[in-house]
Amino acid sequence: MTTALETTSVGPAAYELMERLFPLCRSLTGDGVRATFDALEEHIPITRTEIPSGTEVFDWIVPDEWNIRDAYILGPDGTRVVDYRRSSLHVVSYSEPVRTTLSLDELRERLHTLPDQPDVVPYRTSYYARTWGFCLSHRQLLQLPPGDYEVVIDSTLEPGNLTYAELEIEGTGDAEVLISTYVCHPSLANDNLSGIAVATMLAKRLLARDDLRNTYRFVFGPGTIGPLSWLHQNRDRLDRIQHGLTLSCIGDAGDLTYKRSGREHAEVDQAMEIVLRDSGAPHRILPWEPWGGDERQFCSPGFDLPVGSLMRTPHGEFAGYHTSADGLERIRPESLAGAVDTALRLVDVLESNRRYRNLSPYGEPQLGRRGLYRSAGGAVETPDDERALLWVLNQSDGESSLLDIARRSGLRYPVIRRAAERLENAGLLAG
Amino acid sequence: MTTALETTSVGPAAYELMERLFPLCRSLTGDGVRATFDALEEHIPITRTEIPSGTEVFDWIVPDEWNIRDAYILGPDGTRVVDYRRSSLHVVSYSEPVRTTLSLDELRERLHTLPDQPDVVPYRTSYYARTWGFCLSHRQLLQLPPGDYEVVIDSTLEPGNLTYAELEIEGTGDAEVLISTYVCHPSLANDNLSGIAVATMLAKRLLARDDLRNTYRFVFGPGTIGPLSWLHQNRDRLDRIQHGLTLSCIGDAGDLTYKRSGREHAEVDQAMEIVLRDSGAPHRILPWEPWGGDERQFCSPGFDLPVGSLMRTPHGEFAGYHTSADGLERIRPESLAGAVDTALRLVDVLESNRRYRNLSPYGEPQLGRRGLYRSAGGAVETPDDERALLWVLNQSDGESSLLDIARRSGLRYPVIRRAAERLENAGLLAG
Amino acid sequence: MTTALETTSVGPAAYELMERLFPLCRSLTGDGVRATFDALEEHIPITRTEIPSGTEVFDWIVPDEWNIRDAYILGPDGTRVVDYRRSSLHVVSYSEPVRTTLSLDELRERLHTLPDQPDVVPYRTSYYARTWGFCLSHRQLLQLPPGDYEVVIDSTLEPGNLTYAELEIEGTGDAEVLISTYVCHPSLANDNLSGIAVATMLAKRLLARDDLRNTYRFVFGPGTIGPLSWLHQNRDRLDRIQHGLTLSCIGDAGDLTYKRSGREHAEVDQAMEIVLRDSGAPHRILPWEPWGGDERQFCSPGFDLPVGSLMRTPHGEFAGYHTSADGLERIRPESLAGAVDTALRLVDVLESNRRYRNLSPYGEPQLGRRGLYRSAGGAVETPDDERALLWVLNQSDGESSLLDIARRSGLRYPVIRRAAERLENAGLLAG
Repeated sequence: MTTALETTSVGPAAYELMERLFPLCRSLTGDGVRATFDALEEHIPITRTEIPSGTEVFDWIVPDEWNIRDAYILGPDGTRVVDYRRSSLHVVSYSEPVRTTLSLDELRERLHTLPDQPDVVPYRTSYYARTWGFCLSHRQLLQLPPGDYEVVIDSTLEPGNLTYAELEIEGTGDAEVLISTYVCHPSLANDNLSGIAVATMLAKRLLARDDLRNTYRFVFGPGTIGPLSWLHQNRDRLDRIQHGLTLSCIGDAGDLTYKRSGREHAEVDQAMEIVLRDSGAPHRILPWEPWGGDERQFCSPGFDLPVGSLMRTPHGEFAGYHTSADGLERIRPESLAGAVDTALRLVDVLESNRRYRNLSPYGEPQLGRRGLYRSAGGAVETPDDERALLWVLNQSDGESSLLDIARRSGLRYPVIRRAAERLENAGLLAG
Repeated sequence: MTTALETTSVGPAAYELMERLFPLCRSLTGDGVRATFDALEEHIPITRTEIPSGTEVFDWIVPDEWNIRDAYILGPDGTRVVDYRRSSLHVVSYSEPVRTTLSLDELRERLHTLPDQPDVVPYRTSYYARTWGFCLSHRQLLQLPPGDYEVVIDSTLEPGNLTYAELEIEGTGDAEVLISTYVCHPSLANDNLSGIAVATMLAKRLLARDDLRNTYRFVFGPGTIGPLSWLHQNRDRLDRIQHGLTLSCIGDAGDLTYKRSGREHAEVDQAMEIVLRDSGAPHRILPWEPWGGDERQFCSPGFDLPVGSLMRTPHGEFAGYHTSADGLERIRPESLAGAVDTALRLVDVLESNRRYRNLSPYGEPQLGRRGLYRSAGGAVETPDDERALLWVLNQSDGESSLLDIARRSGLRYPVIRRAAERLENAGLLAG
Repeated sequence: MTTALETTSVGPAAYELMERLFPLCRSLTGDGVRATFDALEEHIPITRTEIPSGTEVFDWIVPDEWNIRDAYILGPDGTRVVDYRRSSLHVVSYSEPVRTTLSLDELRERLHTLPDQPDVVPYRTSYYARTWGFCLSHRQLLQLPPGDYEVVIDSTLEPGNLTYAELEIEGTGDAEVLISTYVCHPSLANDNLSGIAVATMLAKRLLARDDLRNTYRFVFGPGTIGPLSWLHQNRDRLDRIQHGLTLSCIGDAGDLTYKRSGREHAEVDQAMEIVLRDSGAPHRILPWEPWGGDERQFCSPGFDLPVGSLMRTPHGEFAGYHTSADGLERIRPESLAGAVDTALRLVDVLESNRRYRNLSPYGEPQLGRRGLYRSAGGAVETPDDERALLWVLNQSDGESSLLDIARRSGLRYPVIRRAAERLENAGLLAG
């Protein structure tokens, strides 16, 4: 159960995908999202769902579709002092169309800056209250000369659709694993694009396998309303979701951080904690809290799905969050590759974890006779392997899973899993 | 749900009550207890119960009633060298009447001192074995000249009554909260009078409210035999007691200390722990042990009532415990006021804690539309308020109480409670 | 319930027994084991069981019996350069008979040394693969001159029997306590003989008692196949085993170490942890792991017996384990005596632990009237005694055992036990 493709290429490939996606103006709806899906489609065979504006999804209503072709502010001298074409962050997301001329004082009320971070452009949205505005650095604001400014936002905000994309990688069993990430942020790198890139590369690797027991379902949709739309469309089949993971802010140099699902000790929580423990790398496990990303929807009490969240530096903790400082220079290809690798190790646990029954439970079976112990060559090279055999035999009472045994023994999960395979092959264990 | 009276006046008022009570000679029974109740009656409308001597209360028998008018020792020169009128501590509580003349050697066998604390008068009782004696400082004992001493204890110890007092502040629901303190110690300040004063001021504040759901029942009785008598009188209605608290040694400068009920994790235990956590002040939580005050009776296995104990420096830990060193100078009005305030915060939790059900459990409801989130003004001023809304929605599955949510979220209870009220008002939560 | 014999003599007596056993060549089977039992029989009335070679015991088969009369290597000069009579470690246990002459190069392939511990002779066995060999120090190996070596192993390896010994000390009740140790190691002191000596002295002390409630069953057999044989012979009556303990490596200067049974919190685990806590001496509690000694068989999932393990320095942690460095000089008589004493304290807990019911559960009973409190003389000397009375009364709801009360109260088990006895005598407690 090793990964089919070279993982050394994963980091650069994921990074390239992020570079391609970075300039697109994503939002809750619109062609920026669709263009993003066009790019993903070159890697993985996603299918799209369009949900019409006005559709009720639980307590929410799908908003009008927003599209933008251009937006700028012409200064008194006729030059573009703020230009959407330079960065999609310059226009408040979901801005109504506008074409007018304003004095500097009038204009100022429509401009968003961060006085305490004077060099960065903030990211602003106004999805559910109609308005318009521009974002720019505070330093630039201070330099604007008095005079008349021509303001143009060439956008549309009218009934249309919300778009989400899905990929199902079918396994042989009934259980599904949900992998979800969001696609609604414009030119932000770690906060959004990193999750898209890692999910895409993970999907690519899983597509290359033919040994999967679980079905893996990837969902790419706008934050909050995206997962809600997907949940609404799939509300009659959610009992198939046995495990889930959201991906966000996962491309920076920080350590991996796992936030538990609302259940706190679901199998996916236990699995990810063992994967991170086994990695030997510094990492953090955060308790559940109903604050953060799309896990808020999956783990709401009506659904209570076992969906955890994998990230690096959590969104509240990195400087420049939701500003132009969250650019591609913050991203490390090896961080992306490490995230894919960690997700694949999680997949390995979810694929192989089960409860066994020791078929020779009265005393230890004589392992030496079966070439499993001590004198045996081959895979049994280390004391850990021998200990793993004894642990699996001792704990396989039909109640403890391999994950339970890995946790209790302190031995690495792959060592426990291999021991179980060898014991099963020797006829000493039944699944 | 704020307190109706100014709490700034609580400390001085409680202290004044203690000053008034200090000289009275309380014991298990007798007119000292009744005079104490006379003083309380100026603050709160208590009712009294008299239990005749000889009444069987579970394994105990109500003892004879003890009253004392005067007691003294005349020295060889005819002056009162030990005088009950100077301090009620000078006579062993429950001393039989005596009128005799003794040599110094004979007298010494009736004198109690503390050689290792030579300046203080010890507190001694002999409730269940008939005897008599005096207490004085060891330094004074050493200065007594040889000669004949005339000894007088003008007391009575005969069939009468044990007296306890009660106050019921009726709520709209069925549940009762028991607040108990003891009234049997003579001129001791922290050990006894502080509890009486805090209970009285707490009762006074609760009497001024008309919004109480629980009934609050205050019991003032002599230690051990008092609660046992009350329990015996009320043995058929104890199932109404849902929460309880004893108050003792609560007026000194020490941090608040809460000792858990015998159940360790009853609602009152959880509530008090959250109240103390939310206070931000240093405090201690002690595990249950069947050693201490009247909680020993309430938490005995036959009753197993959820009664915790609130104090400051526990009785075993302060120097001068059960001696004349436990005088009024040890008491701080602000300590008394802080105890009343803490008890009122406990009341707020016991009044408001409940389990809610999220009426929009499929995903997060759209709070912005209802003015509850972000753009909303008014009460939503801090991120804590927003987090509290999400926590309450996420956890309100009918199983978790507001107290559970306050504990799990780390947010202050009042913030959680207000979030629940706002969500209920918005039709998103049902109690 | 004090021990009947002077324990001051236990250490020297145990040490003498080890001296007597040290030279014997024990193995899985054979006359070395029988001679060991002959020596034990001078202390305790054991009975022996012989299991024929070829008998199936669960997944195992009893091997042929091995006996050895002599073994040596004659050097080129005709002197015995390696001589079994000097130490039984010199011959690989279960070596086939051989009589041949080899060059030094040929001989070397049959010689086992420890290059990184050049002064010690290793201990080697080959129970289940037929072969032969010698063990010697690496230093001696390097000094062997070239030339022809005459090699003689005068052994037999043929159908016979496996021998184990048992001692049953009958109690008045139905429950049995299993005490097990192994007898298959040749001239090794701490690893093997210490357990035999401690078990023997413990049995001797229990034989002198007539107040035992539990039956104590001592089993002395070869490692792994010994307990398996005993379990197989007794497979229909294993439900009588309520507690168990294996003894190993228990004579060195290290602190006592207890490894929990597979159940982790069986009564024997709780009891031993309280005994070690009460000792006030440094000690270690290890979690269960299916690695170690004969507890691996008792705690296999098919049996799941509550059998813990008492030792001093665990076998993996002392230098010279399984070499000639594990000699008698490593053993301290006081360590042996301390182990016997600890086991006797465990016996005291297992004999006396039970759940009581407070017959006066409504409030505290009036202990003073019964001479149990404060004024009482006699056994009630310390506050601990009074606290113990209150703890036992408070917790005796028929659910909590004395062990539970000792743990929760922090009071020493004997103090709790005595309090329960006194309360039972006073008619306040029923067993």
